[in-house]
Amino acid sequence: MPLGEDMHALVRRLYPLCRSITGDGVRETLKIVGEHVDLTVHEVPTGTQVLDWTVPQEWNIRDAYIARDGERVVDFQALNLHVVGYSVPVDETMSLAELRGHLHTLPDQPDLVPYRTSYYAPTWGFCLAQSTLDEMSDGDYEVRIDSTLADGSLTYAEHVVRGQVEDEVIVSCHVCHPSLANDNMAGVAVAVELARWLAQSPRNPYYTYRFIFAPGTIGAITWLARNRERVDRVKHGIVLACAGDRGSLTYKQSRRGDAEIDRVLAHVLGDRPHEIREFSPYGYDERQYCSPGFDLGVGSLTRTPYAGYPEYHTSGDNPDFVTPESLLDTLEACQEAVAILDRNRTYVNLSPYGEPQLGRRGLYSSLGGRSDAHDAQLAMLWVLNLSDGTHDLLAIADRARLPFPAVAAAADALHAAGLLKD
Amino acid sequence: MPLGEDMHALVRRLYPLCRSITGDGVRETLKIVGEHVDLTVHEVPTGTQVLDWTVPQEWNIRDAYIARDGERVVDFQALNLHVVGYSVPVDETMSLAELRGHLHTLPDQPDLVPYRTSYYAPTWGFCLAQSTLDEMSDGDYEVRIDSTLADGSLTYAEHVVRGQVEDEVIVSCHVCHPSLANDNMAGVAVAVELARWLAQSPRNPYYTYRFIFAPGTIGAITWLARNRERVDRVKHGIVLACAGDRGSLTYKQSRRGDAEIDRVLAHVLGDRPHEIREFSPYGYDERQYCSPGFDLGVGSLTRTPYAGYPEYHTSGDNPDFVTPESLLDTLEACQEAVAILDRNRTYVNLSPYGEPQLGRRGLYSSLGGRSDAHDAQLAMLWVLNLSDGTHDLLAIADRARLPFPAVAAAADALHAAGLLKD
Amino acid sequence: MPLGEDMHALVRRLYPLCRSITGDGVRETLKIVGEHVDLTVHEVPTGTQVLDWTVPQEWNIRDAYIARDGERVVDFQALNLHVVGYSVPVDETMSLAELRGHLHTLPDQPDLVPYRTSYYAPTWGFCLAQSTLDEMSDGDYEVRIDSTLADGSLTYAEHVVRGQVEDEVIVSCHVCHPSLANDNMAGVAVAVELARWLAQSPRNPYYTYRFIFAPGTIGAITWLARNRERVDRVKHGIVLACAGDRGSLTYKQSRRGDAEIDRVLAHVLGDRPHEIREFSPYGYDERQYCSPGFDLGVGSLTRTPYAGYPEYHTSGDNPDFVTPESLLDTLEACQEAVAILDRNRTYVNLSPYGEPQLGRRGLYSSLGGRSDAHDAQLAMLWVLNLSDGTHDLLAIADRARLPFPAVAAAADALHAAGLLKD
Repeated sequence: MPLGEDMHALVRRLYPLCRSITGDGVRETLKIVGEHVDLTVHEVPTGTQVLDWTVPQEWNIRDAYIARDGERVVDFQALNLHVVGYSVPVDETMSLAELRGHLHTLPDQPDLVPYRTSYYAPTWGFCLAQSTLDEMSDGDYEVRIDSTLADGSLTYAEHVVRGQVEDEVIVSCHVCHPSLANDNMAGVAVAVELARWLAQSPRNPYYTYRFIFAPGTIGAITWLARNRERVDRVKHGIVLACAGDRGSLTYKQSRRGDAEIDRVLAHVLGDRPHEIREFSPYGYDERQYCSPGFDLGVGSLTRTPYAGYPEYHTSGDNPDFVTPESLLDTLEACQEAVAILDRNRTYVNLSPYGEPQLGRRGLYSSLGGRSDAHDAQLAMLWVLNLSDGTHDLLAIADRARLPFPAVAAAADALHAAGLLKD
Repeated sequence: MPLGEDMHALVRRLYPLCRSITGDGVRETLKIVGEHVDLTVHEVPTGTQVLDWTVPQEWNIRDAYIARDGERVVDFQALNLHVVGYSVPVDETMSLAELRGHLHTLPDQPDLVPYRTSYYAPTWGFCLAQSTLDEMSDGDYEVRIDSTLADGSLTYAEHVVRGQVEDEVIVSCHVCHPSLANDNMAGVAVAVELARWLAQSPRNPYYTYRFIFAPGTIGAITWLARNRERVDRVKHGIVLACAGDRGSLTYKQSRRGDAEIDRVLAHVLGDRPHEIREFSPYGYDERQYCSPGFDLGVGSLTRTPYAGYPEYHTSGDNPDFVTPESLLDTLEACQEAVAILDRNRTYVNLSPYGEPQLGRRGLYSSLGGRSDAHDAQLAMLWVLNLSDGTHDLLAIADRARLPFPAVAAAADALHAAGLLKD
Repeated sequence: MPLGEDMHALVRRLYPLCRSITGDGVRETLKIVGEHVDLTVHEVPTGTQVLDWTVPQEWNIRDAYIARDGERVVDFQALNLHVVGYSVPVDETMSLAELRGHLHTLPDQPDLVPYRTSYYAPTWGFCLAQSTLDEMSDGDYEVRIDSTLADGSLTYAEHVVRGQVEDEVIVSCHVCHPSLANDNMAGVAVAVELARWLAQSPRNPYYTYRFIFAPGTIGAITWLARNRERVDRVKHGIVLACAGDRGSLTYKQSRRGDAEIDRVLAHVLGDRPHEIREFSPYGYDERQYCSPGFDLGVGSLTRTPYAGYPEYHTSGDNPDFVTPESLLDTLEACQEAVAILDRNRTYVNLSPYGEPQLGRRGLYSSLGGRSDAHDAQLAMLWVLNLSDGTHDLLAIADRARLPFPAVAAAADALHAAGLLKD
């Protein structure tokens, strides 16, 4: 499983970087991704108005710890989750009692460190295991966060695979989480391989595929703000997240619920253990793409979904939580979905009065009377019967309970025989 | 349970009156109801054309009996069900054999007296227990019905709670049944308390609420005939009947099946043992309100529905058949329904492109990364996402599987923040 | 069961004829059918263009055999399935090895002879039991097919029962299969009795009923080609096939899926063991009637459906495979369907505001208060309530869960009373 291993290696390499919604961690992440696929990196200055939001100051951090007598009890260098994201600088000595108001633990999961941020309210804090806190005795602690919060920019990147048309499919991954592996370096790794697979295709895809690597919420909002005039080119999309845990695949529908992407994923997942969920305005950046003003045909593909596993947003979401097998399975589902989406078309039967005589066109076995109907012939009959301008090939495949490739092949043969038009 | 006891006391007080579709029994009933809520009483003269019908002669009865040797065997004074409603006067002596054609019993429920009427065909009759009939020996009986059938009027009453708009919600109860407690003095008692509760509200309700106390069929038809020009103000309505028996609640949908009142009751009953039935043109006055020419959004709320219990339309439907607990439960369901109906509104998100930044408006917890989403925040996201002019708050609550009050509170907060418009 | 026996006798009489898509076997079949119902027989010359197809040469066969030393091993005279339909003439002696390429057997059903044809590719062949083939020793065989393939005509026939309107219901049966009893002499026999039953009706049916007896595929295509300008008169139709086996009834919906005929058959079959299948473009001549250019409201009624039994298209489909009871049951279902279709109408309630007073029109029992509602009265209330121009009587019967005849009788009574208009 070299591809699965490749993706897992990328997850492991990206995992240690201290990402946030701005800053050098995101830049470093995109630099590594850019070693695999060409990226256009965008820097959007602090203070830029993006839809209802404003790009915040850039946050960078070099070091942070809680120490006693010079010995680090909580150490950012060991795990970047230890610092609340966007913490303002601190350099103080204070008692444990004073410190407690700035400490975040998970009492019910005493050995795990939680992930916390405070992007838009200036504060600071540390996250640590409850078991660590329990061992901290009263007394004074040196508390230091060597961070800067200053005008700078928000960073995101795009990779585009040009298609035959300008209509676009977007694949969007959030890149703002520090050391969380499944959420979302796994999504990034799958997106990278999906992009490489598309580029390897012998011919251009039909759609133009745009991969968006951006910080969650503010990144998607920034992308939407800067692409507002051309967002109607986006015909379909997938938000990729939590792509590598051991759970089965989950597809969360677009807000529309019956968008083409929703039908495609239902078809692809039909043969696997899976769950399909209705849209909800909570989760990842589908929230932005599916806000009512945009209402794009964008769903979200995950394995175990948002907030659905105990390790979610904790130090338990480390590279061991992600497997090469799961990454590969997610990739393959994406590939199947893209293959269907890219080939799906609505045809019109040019010989709609009675069945056309397939036999004289070499499209039909000449020996009649046999009661076993072959899939290929069935597929042609279904395509002819339903190609009235209101059923696309996917709808025909679903209705006929035939594999999409068989239906597409039938359409190809019928089109070549002059019996169908686009 | 003072309210439940109050309602039960009203049922007991109203129970003995000999009501019919016209006459002093209805007037006396409305006089007692009028002690609890202000009523406008209408008298519609005999002969008045009302839609396809004509107001019949008024029927009054003072006494009736079947006696033998001066001893009453069947006595109207003991139970007014003993006389067939609208019986013409009789004063004869006749053999049991002659009498039998005028006697109605329930052989399968030998100790119960049935309820029978003959409004539109002049006849007379007595209803009695089969066990009583079985003990009547052959021979002559004195048969007397001291009734009058004469020009007069049909009586109905209205109680109106003014709202902020002229659009109306009607609550309609039939008041034509003599000594039947559940059907429908229980409905009357619940309607009275619902009206009082509305009046006690600190501010005017949104809708104007009109309570209609009228005889069944001809009363509703009379009301519709006299309000034909303004009936389009009636946006929603509930026919209240059989409101106090020990069964669970049953809601019968309006003819439309998807009227707002139908969704409201489905939401309210969702958390209780209940049954929802499709509309049928048999039952109470929803038949008239939902006739195809009017087709109002009026459903019917009962406990055990129309003709659904053995005591239905018999002497078994006495005050013991009705409980304070059931009356209170029906009232509470009505109150919840009214609260939703009155608050339900369709908003438009004024910031529909991406999510608006709730944090800077103080509407969102500033500490991110926590995986537990609070209902209040979820409700705001749902309201923002679905407020596109096609979803009302109830639809949002149903879709989000959130309590209606949480969704309404979210809408209030968002409206106050200028993020929603009506 | 004289009717069932009559139909079975017709199946037995028609069974031995060697039918194909053209030729004297079809003509002889139609001649026998014409003894029961008047037929208009059409002859369409070889070479005529019919939609996308061309009428082929006419095929006739007098004899065929495989013999060894003058003794027939495979003999057309014993069973006409032994020759592949449309086989070109042969008169040769050849080794078993050479012959094998022209032999068709069913190895999994070794005692059955398959049915095979090759209408549009000139070839020849024999069908035989695998057990027969197994006994054929190596050596030379005399192989003779005394057939002619020559310009001639395609034959089909129509029987028309004139109705009150020119709108038509078609009943279509394929008549191209040689010695197969259930498929489709059973369908022919049921169609014949259905036509006779319609003619015996005391008054003209509402619709004009057209029975089409034509070879499969090319026959239906020829009929459609020659009736293209008037095909929009066809409002409903049933393709009758496999009408006599011991299985329960199966209805395959029209392409539309919600055509009136689909609702009628669902209603009729509702009380019997049955299966309803969605349309598929594989089966009998519904394929042609439901091609997207025509898209007629034509479904298919069978017992065990197309290709659904092991004897399908084999010598096992002989008259013993068909029973009088099954033929009668199919006929009765057709009669019920026709009765509903012919009577189904959409009315408009002329007194839609409130319920009209049925009592004064003699349409309602005058004694009220009884809790048992009679079907006839319920049916009237349903018809009045739903006759708003959007519900036909069948929709009302389905919604009310009442038998169609009760609903139709209610409509008759209400129409007679001036309460409904067409």
